[in-house]
Amino acid sequence: MAAASKPHVVIIGGGFAGLNAAKQLRDADVAVTIVDQHNHHTFQPLLYQVATASLSPADIAGPIRAILRRQTNLSVILAEVTGIDLARGVVHMGTDELAYDYLIIAAGSTDSYFGHDEWEKYAGGLKTLDDAVRMRNQILLGFEAAERAHTDDERRRDMTFAIIGGGPTGVELAGAIAEISRHSISRDFDRIDPRQARIILIDAGPRLLAAYPESLSKHAQSDLERLGVEVRLNALVTSVDERGLTLKSGDRIEAATRLWAAGVQASPLGRAMAVEVDRAGRVLVNPDLSIPGHPNVFVAGDLAALNGKDGKQLPGVAQVAMQQGRAAARNIMRSIAGEATVPFQYKDLGNMATIGRNRAVADIHGIHLHGFIAWVIWLTIHLVNLIGFRNRFVVMTQWIWSYLTFYRRVRLITNPGTAAD
Amino acid sequence: MAAASKPHVVIIGGGFAGLNAAKQLRDADVAVTIVDQHNHHTFQPLLYQVATASLSPADIAGPIRAILRRQTNLSVILAEVTGIDLARGVVHMGTDELAYDYLIIAAGSTDSYFGHDEWEKYAGGLKTLDDAVRMRNQILLGFEAAERAHTDDERRRDMTFAIIGGGPTGVELAGAIAEISRHSISRDFDRIDPRQARIILIDAGPRLLAAYPESLSKHAQSDLERLGVEVRLNALVTSVDERGLTLKSGDRIEAATRLWAAGVQASPLGRAMAVEVDRAGRVLVNPDLSIPGHPNVFVAGDLAALNGKDGKQLPGVAQVAMQQGRAAARNIMRSIAGEATVPFQYKDLGNMATIGRNRAVADIHGIHLHGFIAWVIWLTIHLVNLIGFRNRFVVMTQWIWSYLTFYRRVRLITNPGTAAD
Repeated sequence: MAAASKPHVVIIGGGFAGLNAAKQLRDADVAVTIVDQHNHHTFQPLLYQVATASLSPADIAGPIRAILRRQTNLSVILAEVTGIDLARGVVHMGTDELAYDYLIIAAGSTDSYFGHDEWEKYAGGLKTLDDAVRMRNQILLGFEAAERAHTDDERRRDMTFAIIGGGPTGVELAGAIAEISRHSISRDFDRIDPRQARIILIDAGPRLLAAYPESLSKHAQSDLERLGVEVRLNALVTSVDERGLTLKSGDRIEAATRLWAAGVQASPLGRAMAVEVDRAGRVLVNPDLSIPGHPNVFVAGDLAALNGKDGKQLPGVAQVAMQQGRAAARNIMRSIAGEATVPFQYKDLGNMATIGRNRAVADIHGIHLHGFIAWVIWLTIHLVNLIGFRNRFVVMTQWIWSYLTFYRRVRLITNPGTAAD
Repeated sequence: MAAASKPHVVIIGGGFAGLNAAKQLRDADVAVTIVDQHNHHTFQPLLYQVATASLSPADIAGPIRAILRRQTNLSVILAEVTGIDLARGVVHMGTDELAYDYLIIAAGSTDSYFGHDEWEKYAGGLKTLDDAVRMRNQILLGFEAAERAHTDDERRRDMTFAIIGGGPTGVELAGAIAEISRHSISRDFDRIDPRQARIILIDAGPRLLAAYPESLSKHAQSDLERLGVEVRLNALVTSVDERGLTLKSGDRIEAATRLWAAGVQASPLGRAMAVEVDRAGRVLVNPDLSIPGHPNVFVAGDLAALNGKDGKQLPGVAQVAMQQGRAAARNIMRSIAGEATVPFQYKDLGNMATIGRNRAVADIHGIHLHGFIAWVIWLTIHLVNLIGFRNRFVVMTQWIWSYLTFYRRVRLITNPGTAAD
């Protein structure tokens, strides 16, 4: 068969969903094109370790071209997808366009500010490597500013870190910042004692890690409190500005560093198509992940709105994205072979989050673990899933080193121009 | 003696000169304050490896606070020095000021565009980690743009890399870019063959590495040419723009990527004081490195204008900066002890530059080496001098890995907003 006559599968996004879809199509008799606005795949579950100076960007990311180098039926295009014309079957990238026979939209999600987009510039989120480097700058600059502060009020404000959102990202950030201030840099300064830093984790709901079993929420909270983190529950943020934030209770928190981990919304690509989306902008897909009325177009990962067996929306986690990417690819192969597509079934492998340097909570097939054992499982699973043997080896040596010394090697403030504050 | 009565030594700059001055003062009965606009010391001789995707920023940089953590007589301030008032004996940092008894100015150098500062935005230099990341983005984006190009002319331009300046930085960049295109990414693309990339190294003088013995210049040139680099000598650049550059001969080179390695000028802090400076803005210092008329103010490193035994200006290399930093600190200790200061004497340990992955040229105490042996010596000296055992270990494993696999791990395009082009 001539190359030109092979079905063309376009994948938008090189995240967990897109990458796994591409790999699933490795031996298929199709031409695959993967389009991403970044040249690299990011292992998002470890972004918080870049943001808290434990790992370098290159430790948790790899060039998409290099990851998929051995796949001969695949092209990679570095471009931002600006629109999708479902009627004509083309993807727009600025003035360029790309025709597809089959399309997998795996464009992921961005931070949601619940209608207050103006807060973004005062409290950045954590979705990309650039976000992580910006967050790292902000955290480190907080201590530097405190060292130079002229008044006690200023110093207190510089050393207050408010993390908005008590999901896994917020919990992991709060724990890591506590470790930095209590251990890694505790003796690096002259005029301030970093151990005095205030780390406040704020959530609007009644408990941390709302998606986890209640006993694990409690463990997470008490572990964080032991590290010196203030946990504020049932606390709705009503305004964020360049000096701090205000809660619905009227409480004002003066905090030079404000980090956003409160929620995500789907990529705007969903809303930009004439298809049905939910409130978070996720595309309402058929059980086989295709878009109603467009059997050749599939959505996978954070951009897909689909309920699990329990009738609840599947969570926006790596496991769902990876499984949906593979499922969408398999359904495309079935379509090409003239077979019926099959509904997506999520196989829940569990949830976990670390708290500081040697504790974690994990919910694996209904077994609830916490403390050191959960942390060892967390380490193992994340190392095994990291992309590339090289990265795994580097990350493992960094972790062992940091564990033994409390030392955070990646304490670099770079691109100061881009750091807020 | 009460702490307050100890002489206060302020050091401006945490580069090779400033850091070595601080370390020299470790056991002195003084209070030392080091001021730098970055929170980290950068091992500049390896910046080109960050720019060419072999190493991560954190591999060649370390937080100044962490490096000097055990030094109890020392404070670190993260701030930009905006001026020096020699009459009042204070250093200005924006609206803050810092009084000194002794001052070591080690503010280093920036790129010089020989009166054409407008070229900077079309051809960035390589002095900081941010520069290196920006350069890395630009090089990688060149290939990505070529992959998407619509015409052959566009593709050729996207895959042309012009490096202006044939000193060690230019030679090392040209060699590394050749390696990337010929090996590391040679099979990563679909529509382009990266091995077709044109890498042009341009120098206005009659030979590369003008400060090295002539035989080594020849070896460097032939090694580069074997890697496929075009070396253009006696070629003066007369204009640089967003599409390429023009030579005095009238030749036009269309190049999407233009990298500047042609020259440095001293930090503007020199000219901002009412002292005598040379054409490059370096402060004309006494043989003991003090500023004429200001026996308590010393200049060390790239900002100092001082001739060596041969009557020629000492080169702006790490060795000179390190030795001057230590010498300035020792002269301050002599002053405090009521002794006479002594003139600075440079002990030349040699010059070296790598060319590609296993060749180098080295001039060590008049012994000229080239090829593989020179490269092994280069590796050893750079590893030994890297800051921190941790970094040394990481960098060594990365080098061994890259050597065996040609793989460049750090091929990340980050902060696309800041990348020129």
